[in-house]
Amino acid sequence: MDGCPSGLEISEQKIQLELDRRRPGQSKITTQRKESDKVRILSGVFEGKTLGTPISLIVDNVDAISKSYEDIKDTYRPGHADFTYDAKYGRRDHRGGGRSSNRETVGRVAAGAIAKKILSLEGIATHGFVRQVGDIVAENVDFQEIENNIVRCPDKEKAAQMIELIDKVRKEGDSIGGTVEVVSTGLPAGLGNPVFNKMDADLAGALMSLGGIRGFEVGLGFKVSGMKGSESNDLMYKDANGNLRFKTNNAGGLLGGITNGEDLVVRIAIKPTSSISKTQHTVDKSGNPKELRVKGRHDPCLCPRAVPIAEAMVNLVLVDHLLQSKLARI
Amino acid sequence: MDGCPSGLEISEQKIQLELDRRRPGQSKITTQRKESDKVRILSGVFEGKTLGTPISLIVDNVDAISKSYEDIKDTYRPGHADFTYDAKYGRRDHRGGGRSSNRETVGRVAAGAIAKKILSLEGIATHGFVRQVGDIVAENVDFQEIENNIVRCPDKEKAAQMIELIDKVRKEGDSIGGTVEVVSTGLPAGLGNPVFNKMDADLAGALMSLGGIRGFEVGLGFKVSGMKGSESNDLMYKDANGNLRFKTNNAGGLLGGITNGEDLVVRIAIKPTSSISKTQHTVDKSGNPKELRVKGRHDPCLCPRAVPIAEAMVNLVLVDHLLQSKLARI
Amino acid sequence: MDGCPSGLEISEQKIQLELDRRRPGQSKITTQRKESDKVRILSGVFEGKTLGTPISLIVDNVDAISKSYEDIKDTYRPGHADFTYDAKYGRRDHRGGGRSSNRETVGRVAAGAIAKKILSLEGIATHGFVRQVGDIVAENVDFQEIENNIVRCPDKEKAAQMIELIDKVRKEGDSIGGTVEVVSTGLPAGLGNPVFNKMDADLAGALMSLGGIRGFEVGLGFKVSGMKGSESNDLMYKDANGNLRFKTNNAGGLLGGITNGEDLVVRIAIKPTSSISKTQHTVDKSGNPKELRVKGRHDPCLCPRAVPIAEAMVNLVLVDHLLQSKLARI
Amino acid sequence: MDGCPSGLEISEQKIQLELDRRRPGQSKITTQRKESDKVRILSGVFEGKTLGTPISLIVDNVDAISKSYEDIKDTYRPGHADFTYDAKYGRRDHRGGGRSSNRETVGRVAAGAIAKKILSLEGIATHGFVRQVGDIVAENVDFQEIENNIVRCPDKEKAAQMIELIDKVRKEGDSIGGTVEVVSTGLPAGLGNPVFNKMDADLAGALMSLGGIRGFEVGLGFKVSGMKGSESNDLMYKDANGNLRFKTNNAGGLLGGITNGEDLVVRIAIKPTSSISKTQHTVDKSGNPKELRVKGRHDPCLCPRAVPIAEAMVNLVLVDHLLQSKLARI
Repeated sequence: MDGCPSGLEISEQKIQLELDRRRPGQSKITTQRKESDKVRILSGVFEGKTLGTPISLIVDNVDAISKSYEDIKDTYRPGHADFTYDAKYGRRDHRGGGRSSNRETVGRVAAGAIAKKILSLEGIATHGFVRQVGDIVAENVDFQEIENNIVRCPDKEKAAQMIELIDKVRKEGDSIGGTVEVVSTGLPAGLGNPVFNKMDADLAGALMSLGGIRGFEVGLGFKVSGMKGSESNDLMYKDANGNLRFKTNNAGGLLGGITNGEDLVVRIAIKPTSSISKTQHTVDKSGNPKELRVKGRHDPCLCPRAVPIAEAMVNLVLVDHLLQSKLARI
Repeated sequence: MDGCPSGLEISEQKIQLELDRRRPGQSKITTQRKESDKVRILSGVFEGKTLGTPISLIVDNVDAISKSYEDIKDTYRPGHADFTYDAKYGRRDHRGGGRSSNRETVGRVAAGAIAKKILSLEGIATHGFVRQVGDIVAENVDFQEIENNIVRCPDKEKAAQMIELIDKVRKEGDSIGGTVEVVSTGLPAGLGNPVFNKMDADLAGALMSLGGIRGFEVGLGFKVSGMKGSESNDLMYKDANGNLRFKTNNAGGLLGGITNGEDLVVRIAIKPTSSISKTQHTVDKSGNPKELRVKGRHDPCLCPRAVPIAEAMVNLVLVDHLLQSKLARI
Repeated sequence: MDGCPSGLEISEQKIQLELDRRRPGQSKITTQRKESDKVRILSGVFEGKTLGTPISLIVDNVDAISKSYEDIKDTYRPGHADFTYDAKYGRRDHRGGGRSSNRETVGRVAAGAIAKKILSLEGIATHGFVRQVGDIVAENVDFQEIENNIVRCPDKEKAAQMIELIDKVRKEGDSIGGTVEVVSTGLPAGLGNPVFNKMDADLAGALMSLGGIRGFEVGLGFKVSGMKGSESNDLMYKDANGNLRFKTNNAGGLLGGITNGEDLVVRIAIKPTSSISKTQHTVDKSGNPKELRVKGRHDPCLCPRAVPIAEAMVNLVLVDHLLQSKLARI
Repeated sequence: MDGCPSGLEISEQKIQLELDRRRPGQSKITTQRKESDKVRILSGVFEGKTLGTPISLIVDNVDAISKSYEDIKDTYRPGHADFTYDAKYGRRDHRGGGRSSNRETVGRVAAGAIAKKILSLEGIATHGFVRQVGDIVAENVDFQEIENNIVRCPDKEKAAQMIELIDKVRKEGDSIGGTVEVVSTGLPAGLGNPVFNKMDADLAGALMSLGGIRGFEVGLGFKVSGMKGSESNDLMYKDANGNLRFKTNNAGGLLGGITNGEDLVVRIAIKPTSSISKTQHTVDKSGNPKELRVKGRHDPCLCPRAVPIAEAMVNLVLVDHLLQSKLARI
């Protein structure tokens, strides 16, 4: 991780807290693979504070059972990048998906923990949560509730229904999709850029770079397609403290790619896990038909573990813009 | 535009064709501002072919009526970036929105025309169209129909309804949102990258960098939130020509950020134009309440003119990945 | 020019001052081509101050006599990039060298003028001068003298000798090489980076990107090859004001790629102008022998006009590091 | 290391060969610190071939004696970056120089070994050697001789003198400077770019980013300062095979930042090692005078071990341009 200012207090413990939220095996509705995901700081931190030079972190693999993958060496798993990696590179490491494995998000979450720390110094906090699983949609959003349930839903009642649904799907050997929403509070107006590196463009690029994401929204998102300008424009007013504010937040906190001081609100659509235990029909490298029942231990729903990952991506984009914003004026 | 290979046949006429599709004043449902948008090539092309060195294009403004903007000098227009530019930079050019004006997309469309040419040499074609306006959604997709109607909808019947709706909204002094879809055909499998610069991430970043976009989807998009893995996975087969293909295209042509040889399908949500003639309540720089009726000539719906712009962005991303793909193997 | 903070006072007049120092035809020892090199600001500046958004500047060509070049259309001019452009791109614009022409430095000098302004706000000043022409080397360095003579040498006596030498060489139809030195004063300690984007690496990259440069030095430069550590190390002391300083400046103001608070001192070796009126033997595209007497109007020595260009490059690198340095600490 | 094409045969053994040339303790004229510098490939290579995805390599430290550094914790070592790191970041890791240590070049050499392999497939070879130590300058350049002597000088007779000089200086507790030259053969014409990322600019940036470099030259380098155009221009001819060639190579193989098919010739000036055992006067953080006799085990001359490092940097720049050159034409 390059570009972190010097003098920031950082510890392996703080980073570990976030990794533990992402870790496999944390509950009955996640994969049962056991990875301790212990992070070690190799460089860039000295006597508890960042040096300003690159921070190198390492997380060793423990529970990689390569032989689970041996019998699917030449078989293209549905929904996975096996075929496209072969198409691009002419070869691939079939053991666990390699770069296309969700495992690469360990690094994102670790880096995000450092970003989170910097943002906290300016009073910025980011809250990710599961908004939807299957056809169950959270209605009440209580940030305090999120980490109280294993699905990370801010609506206690809906959380229970989501957990039940995921568990049911898991028993069927299937998987289920959902959406994750991320809300950042305490942002100053003025973060982002015109045309190139708009805040929304950077957030979209960052979040769509995760595996299994099929859509990105800011504010009302696709709902604006059916609206009129007189309905969707957020109108301004001066509040009791003399601050210019917006009466609504349809825009999700951004205007012209720049924060407007309201909460930043983004949402991603996450596909059902591709690896399922149900029998699927596919082909091998030579096009021979194959029947596949994925034996690995996989998440029945990607959403709960996607929450800390999505938070990390948002925090990484925000911290970049926060730092750069110091250069906007002479 | 840097990075264009030498030896490509390029003419101002070819670029102009695309600019004319984006041009204001092209029909009754677009802004009536008159801009000829004539492009001139300043450098990088010699005797009708690219030199390999940067291509410099210029399009002069003609119909900029700065005084239309004089009386809103200090007033924050709802839905515009006036406030956020002030928040970021402490100053702004109030005459027409500057960098936040949709006018900056002229350059994108011009560059996209060159990208389109390169892609065409490899049999790749990109088709943008209006999928939705308000609550009217195109069902039949006939690429031939798109340029036959002024709303650029591929469904003749729905096109007529969309035009009627836009015209109605325009007369009310209001505006309406919609969605634009872009489909690219003829793509080889293998374009894109793992983790960084995934094709979907780059497309999302490129399309969300346009003004007024609130959402991005690839393939089924947000619909995957409600689906099971056994439903959403695209299964493979060997076709009559011995090619490995997919029976469905829920993923929109991408797996792990890399094209899989099926059509690339993306979609964006476009908000209703912010500038409307209806009276809106806002504030000025000092927080004084202001009533605003925007007198400029604005598009009642951004979608029809957004089609060539969205196509351009997709083509620019595709051509970048197409060229880079030549370096993927030794 | 992107990345300039908002609120900076900028005028075409200020930029023009620097362009006039680079302009052809400014004295008897430069090319007699007449280019007014008038700069116009197209965007990014409003009411005399920068907006924070990209600054677009244009300088139109006036005295391009394309036909001077017509008869050398297929002939490779010695010392020019004609052959290598053909080798790379398979085609080139033979009229004046295109991108390989020294004319492209207009943009560098214009951008450098803006960098200079920002640096001046922090008390940083950059002084370029001709250190050597042929075998004549300036010994006294009086910054006040530099612009008093047409060769831009800080040593009055040597300046006269240099002018005489250049004039003699010009009459012979030949050209002569030299060195330009650039000294920046008022720099704070701490600008630059470890490993990547060291200040010296960035300066070398920037200055070697000019045409006709064959060497780059910082501080004592190649002289260190013959020295011992006990001679070349700059020793530190505390000065009367309590500041940590260096007794010598062999390192040219840099340690580990970062400024140490002493003057930054760099030097470049400039080859004799490639275009000379003397007859030279070369080949055309097909390898046929050709005799060439370049008829264009060329500088007998590149050094005097290279001074403002080298200054501009140093200023552009410095301002980048100065701005970035604001992000080094939390 | 990102950007390496897939399908390249790579082994730890091949990379180790280059690391062994850089390794401490390899002869009596290098530092006697014992580092085995064993490289392990962590990712990006599968069954002996690259995957196209990033290659991660690790070399663990063994012989870091941190306590050698404890008593100089607050003392600024002459010629080192201690003071400038403090000036920039407000803190630093005093144990061994951290990012400013020559130890960071391990990664450069390892990556360079992979670049070397790619270049070799196109017949390109890079030969680094010590041209000068103190006042002793190699005259005969016999590439076969280079690795036959511990100073890596291509001139057998001068090598012996250099070794004797370095040994003498070492016994005095002092150090000595020199120059390293790098020659690449087999390059096609056409590698490099106009204006931005010229080959010479990239080489200068890459080589000046190494520690202790004070100058960079291409071809004749600073000698051109004293020459006339009629002397320095390299004239072209058609050789017996019908190839266009140059009669001389004053330009060091580059014209306008692009290779011309002749040997690439660059040279760097390397300062005497800063750490010497002789007593030096310096200050500590608070400005108190300090006497320093560096007790660490240091190279009396950086040049012999700089040879593989400089080669690596040249190879890394060349391979980047070689790959990119495939995109120059349609």
